[in-house]
Amino acid sequence: MNFDEIIERRGTHSMKWDMMEPLHGVPAEDGIAMWVADMDFRPPAAVQEALQAMLDHGVYGYFGDQSAYFEAIRWWMKTRHGWALDTDHVLTVNGVVNGVGLCLDEFTQPGDGVVLMTPVYHAFGRVIRAAGREVVEMEMPEQGGVYVPDTASWDAKMTGNEKLFILCSPHNPGGRVWTQAELEAIAAFCARHDLLLISDEIHHDLVYPGHTHVPMTRIAGVEDRLIMMTAATKSFNMAGAHLGNVTIPNGDLRKRFANRMGALGTSPNAFGMHMVTAAYSPAGAEWIDALTGYLDGNRRIFDEVVNAIPGLRSMPLESTYLAWVDFSGTGMERDEFTRRVEQDARIAINRGPVFGRGGDSFLRFNFATPRARVEEAAERLRRAFGDLQ
Amino acid sequence: MNFDEIIERRGTHSMKWDMMEPLHGVPAEDGIAMWVADMDFRPPAAVQEALQAMLDHGVYGYFGDQSAYFEAIRWWMKTRHGWALDTDHVLTVNGVVNGVGLCLDEFTQPGDGVVLMTPVYHAFGRVIRAAGREVVEMEMPEQGGVYVPDTASWDAKMTGNEKLFILCSPHNPGGRVWTQAELEAIAAFCARHDLLLISDEIHHDLVYPGHTHVPMTRIAGVEDRLIMMTAATKSFNMAGAHLGNVTIPNGDLRKRFANRMGALGTSPNAFGMHMVTAAYSPAGAEWIDALTGYLDGNRRIFDEVVNAIPGLRSMPLESTYLAWVDFSGTGMERDEFTRRVEQDARIAINRGPVFGRGGDSFLRFNFATPRARVEEAAERLRRAFGDLQ
Repeated sequence: MNFDEIIERRGTHSMKWDMMEPLHGVPAEDGIAMWVADMDFRPPAAVQEALQAMLDHGVYGYFGDQSAYFEAIRWWMKTRHGWALDTDHVLTVNGVVNGVGLCLDEFTQPGDGVVLMTPVYHAFGRVIRAAGREVVEMEMPEQGGVYVPDTASWDAKMTGNEKLFILCSPHNPGGRVWTQAELEAIAAFCARHDLLLISDEIHHDLVYPGHTHVPMTRIAGVEDRLIMMTAATKSFNMAGAHLGNVTIPNGDLRKRFANRMGALGTSPNAFGMHMVTAAYSPAGAEWIDALTGYLDGNRRIFDEVVNAIPGLRSMPLESTYLAWVDFSGTGMERDEFTRRVEQDARIAINRGPVFGRGGDSFLRFNFATPRARVEEAAERLRRAFGDLQ
Repeated sequence: MNFDEIIERRGTHSMKWDMMEPLHGVPAEDGIAMWVADMDFRPPAAVQEALQAMLDHGVYGYFGDQSAYFEAIRWWMKTRHGWALDTDHVLTVNGVVNGVGLCLDEFTQPGDGVVLMTPVYHAFGRVIRAAGREVVEMEMPEQGGVYVPDTASWDAKMTGNEKLFILCSPHNPGGRVWTQAELEAIAAFCARHDLLLISDEIHHDLVYPGHTHVPMTRIAGVEDRLIMMTAATKSFNMAGAHLGNVTIPNGDLRKRFANRMGALGTSPNAFGMHMVTAAYSPAGAEWIDALTGYLDGNRRIFDEVVNAIPGLRSMPLESTYLAWVDFSGTGMERDEFTRRVEQDARIAINRGPVFGRGGDSFLRFNFATPRARVEEAAERLRRAFGDLQ
């Protein structure tokens, strides 16, 4: 667990590093990739060993017998999240975006409204629009410098055309770990408007000290409209394995979802199955604890430098490794602060507007990288905005 | 390339070996798994090396930059199949069944008819039914002991409700490598009835001496209605990697298909991308040549024993490693010959009826396994039907 090790990812078909120059114009030579939400770390040794065992065996046929996989999930959710998961409710898909896409397809019709709390993970809006559904943005106000779900104000904005609500919990970007009371308010809102509720909890393992993630499944009364999305691929940095779990307690909804999976030939690949089974283990838990400690250190270092730059403000994260930095205090146009970050500091980031309403003055920085690189990035930002000092 | 090596697959989450007893009642202890269409061989060393390089690097984030992958496909199709593939036409999905499911979803409506030449790969009927479309079965007659597409007789059976034709080329089961004339007749039929034509060519690399696979893309006039399905996973025994390519020359159809992929969050996993890039290479070609030679030997041994049993007839294969054995000559009920194979000979097979009309008296045997096991299976069959001698 040497998170300080710099592992060269350029030339390995890494989206984050190899597409940084073609897509963002940030030079591969000395640019820092802080956009795509994966980490520059190896997964736990247990995952490496499971993969090595696959290679040593060397036959990569059709995967069968999910019992060990389900047992690992059951153990993880119980032990790490206090969630008594019935694995009969779990359907394994090719990641959370695939799971959301299948839900839109089966549970909504073209033109239906899908509610998002913005700014939020950009892929949601992308798949909603690609599916010909309508994105309904509920912009979150800040309270005490962090986002809050102002459910009381949402009722007036509803048209009756909305069918589905997508919650991101913990939230990306902004890093909120929603409280029990906030989750109850969201559940009540969904009940009031008879919305199905997708709870994307992909960041649930990456929570900082002082905060506790509450799985939506623990909120009373929501079960029948709830679709839980989880994945080990975010927690353990295995996004390339393309695996996610959709948990649907409601038997009718689950049957419909499973049928759509069947009709679309959706099933998991063998590498992901072996990796996740190994990751959801005591060794994996130990690794996650060490990781979140390390990320917490990165977060403090990054925020300290960024918040010292006049006009910049990094939102205090309760979860995720995605710093959400507001540049509105600089008074600069968006093009100007983006240019300084991408071209002067040579840092590839995600631009705020793709996250929806409320994101315009923000950039998202991924600090799940060795500390030396976080320090270098922070220093480059300090210099790029040095005239503001 | 030691295809004789017996690699123990039990206990490795192999669908074929580990689900043989739970699903077929064939004892794991000494049963022989000849059902699921994967092989009991390791892929080429080049694939193993590519995977080992991934593991040695050890960061499994989002995959980016498909250029090497596309170049490998382009080279393979040109070199091995005389197909000048424009890789801009290629969309990468999670296997052929996923590709077919997406086509049904985007290009047909509930209730539409989808034409199959039966008996045919059972997953087609399964996804068509799961999607709420109608399976239209055109049963193939035999001519000289092999299946032929009797296109002349099909016109009368069409209702006008049909929208799509799924061709399996080479054919599974039965192993036909369709001739240029047969493909032209099928293309003409699709044109006459204005059907989109999916050509599943997943077995195109596994062709026996004396036969030449003709890619449907080489048939004049069909391009605008053609959807080609290929995959390295069948040729190189990497089904667990879940990767397939859908090639759509028609720009409008391609755009619609790509949008559905986007709406459903469909994208390939990193393991498959690295494996396929390594497989579609000169080293991979050499391995395929050795493999087909070995399979040809297995086929001869299996057929010789089976065809010597009175009443049994193994259809002469031109491609695939899937022997298609007709038991009608025994005069036995289906339950009886199936019981003898599964319980007396302890061989797990695929039962004929799942392949659709014309399959009732058949069982499918997968002989892509070390020769000693093929010999043992043949001997067990000889004994199980010994009273017929």
